Amino acid sequence: MDDTAGPFQRSLVEGGILVESGIDGLYGFSASYEKILRALQDLVTESGLDQKAFAVHFPPVMPRQVLELTDYLRSFPHLTGSIHTFFGDDRAHAELLALLDSGGDWPDALIPSQVVLRPAACHPLYPTCAGQMPDGGKRFEVHGWCFRHEPSLDPARMQAFRMHEFVYIGEPATALSHRDSWVERGVKMLTEFGLEVNVVSASDPFFGRLGKLMAANQHDQELKLEIVTPITSHELPTAVMSANYHQDHFGAAFGITSADGALAHSSCIGFGLDRIVLALLRAHGLEPDDWPRALRDRLWP
Amino acid sequence: MDDTAGPFQRSLVEGGILVESGIDGLYGFSASYEKILRALQDLVTESGLDQKAFAVHFPPVMPRQVLELTDYLRSFPHLTGSIHTFFGDDRAHAELLALLDSGGDWPDALIPSQVVLRPAACHPLYPTCAGQMPDGGKRFEVHGWCFRHEPSLDPARMQAFRMHEFVYIGEPATALSHRDSWVERGVKMLTEFGLEVNVVSASDPFFGRLGKLMAANQHDQELKLEIVTPITSHELPTAVMSANYHQDHFGAAFGITSADGALAHSSCIGFGLDRIVLALLRAHGLEPDDWPRALRDRLWP
Repeated sequence: MDDTAGPFQRSLVEGGILVESGIDGLYGFSASYEKILRALQDLVTESGLDQKAFAVHFPPVMPRQVLELTDYLRSFPHLTGSIHTFFGDDRAHAELLALLDSGGDWPDALIPSQVVLRPAACHPLYPTCAGQMPDGGKRFEVHGWCFRHEPSLDPARMQAFRMHEFVYIGEPATALSHRDSWVERGVKMLTEFGLEVNVVSASDPFFGRLGKLMAANQHDQELKLEIVTPITSHELPTAVMSANYHQDHFGAAFGITSADGALAHSSCIGFGLDRIVLALLRAHGLEPDDWPRALRDRLWP
Repeated sequence: MDDTAGPFQRSLVEGGILVESGIDGLYGFSASYEKILRALQDLVTESGLDQKAFAVHFPPVMPRQVLELTDYLRSFPHLTGSIHTFFGDDRAHAELLALLDSGGDWPDALIPSQVVLRPAACHPLYPTCAGQMPDGGKRFEVHGWCFRHEPSLDPARMQAFRMHEFVYIGEPATALSHRDSWVERGVKMLTEFGLEVNVVSASDPFFGRLGKLMAANQHDQELKLEIVTPITSHELPTAVMSANYHQDHFGAAFGITSADGALAHSSCIGFGLDRIVLALLRAHGLEPDDWPRALRDRLWP
């Protein structure tokens, strides 16, 4: 985030688009914001209709085991959200309330549940695909709320945000072409929205010393591409779309094979819906009624 | 849940409407399910247009402080979802992974964050209303994902589910009439959907011994009404809509006053969107294309 993030965030809050919650990176959203987001979601679905993707929708929480099997804890422990709750009796409850009333850190008294927050829209999909993919592989559409614990003043870095993904699971070559063809579609769509975009090779924010190596490796192999556009800074544009070739990472983790019996390869492309809404608000102003007619016709046909 | 919950749950899973996650009360949803839910969401919004409610949308997570101020921990500690994450360095990370690799309860090594899961759609709204309400009070529309930790095989008792609420904050008499007029609207809408509904005085699942008294008190004062309809049992119909008069509970917790300077009273009515979808599937069958034409025309005009 550079120092232009402040004024944009303030204009969104003063304009009633974002409602502050008292927690960095956590907002309420105005009806106008949601109307844009929902139109986008429909356009993304429409743009993928030719793929005959299998659509399935998951809630914001998922089984803890998925986080374990995807190696998320190894790579991104700092972004994790594990859900803890109270399992005690009346006496333990009295102790919990005493801790609360004395200003203590009461969540310390809670116990881990079997569920965690979903870090990416596609993660709960993979375990449901265990087994053999059909010949040619299979495409999926998923979207919904994701969580990453990274409190920030940058409105484009929210803790809770919505992603809309198209996923392919099957053969390596098709996984790669799925990713690359969606990058083309994404560039076309976002350019038509009047956004100034670039495609860059990127890496995930892997944790710690070892993470630096993993990021460099991901970069070198060009496994991750991002479509970036200015939101809070022209010098440091923000990724509004991410396209990832996983090789056999999820195939191996969840026992998914392709039609020839080899470990399935996969790729996913994700539209960062909240970030695209913010990019549109930044590019065309806070009042969608004043946006270019072609864009409004596209979003609300 | 009675023993008919099993067969209905199985038919939903076998019919591909719900996708099992391995965790009780946590499912993926088919495109068909989502299409019904979204149509419902639109109908609920439409049914409240005359109220000129202020619409604001919140993510599935909210500030921890909201849970503290609403007294949720006192009443429903067992349903709480507190979000914990990793704050350590490389060394602590190595310890976390060692715990994971040894099959230990690795979330024990995490630290509470400042955010929790939202237990009801309206809870994050109240802190944004601190201060004085306009003359006559104000109406709000909120919807989205809620979480309650109550793993169950009953498909109508999910851990993550969607509520759509209309909230009033202001004078006591209007709070009560807001609630009661929405119960009438709800009964009308659900009856037109071909559901067999009843309005009952109800109470929340307060925790523990003290909770029994709180529930009895809520019941006696008729603060909570539910619209119930058979989903998994005819003998024990499920609440698909809940209507609550809070008196000055949220006014006092968040410093909200009405125009005359007294503590604001509030009421909320919530459509349980997932439960209504399930009730429709139960009443009319798993294939929406075969539903009565009038219902289909209403949902998809």
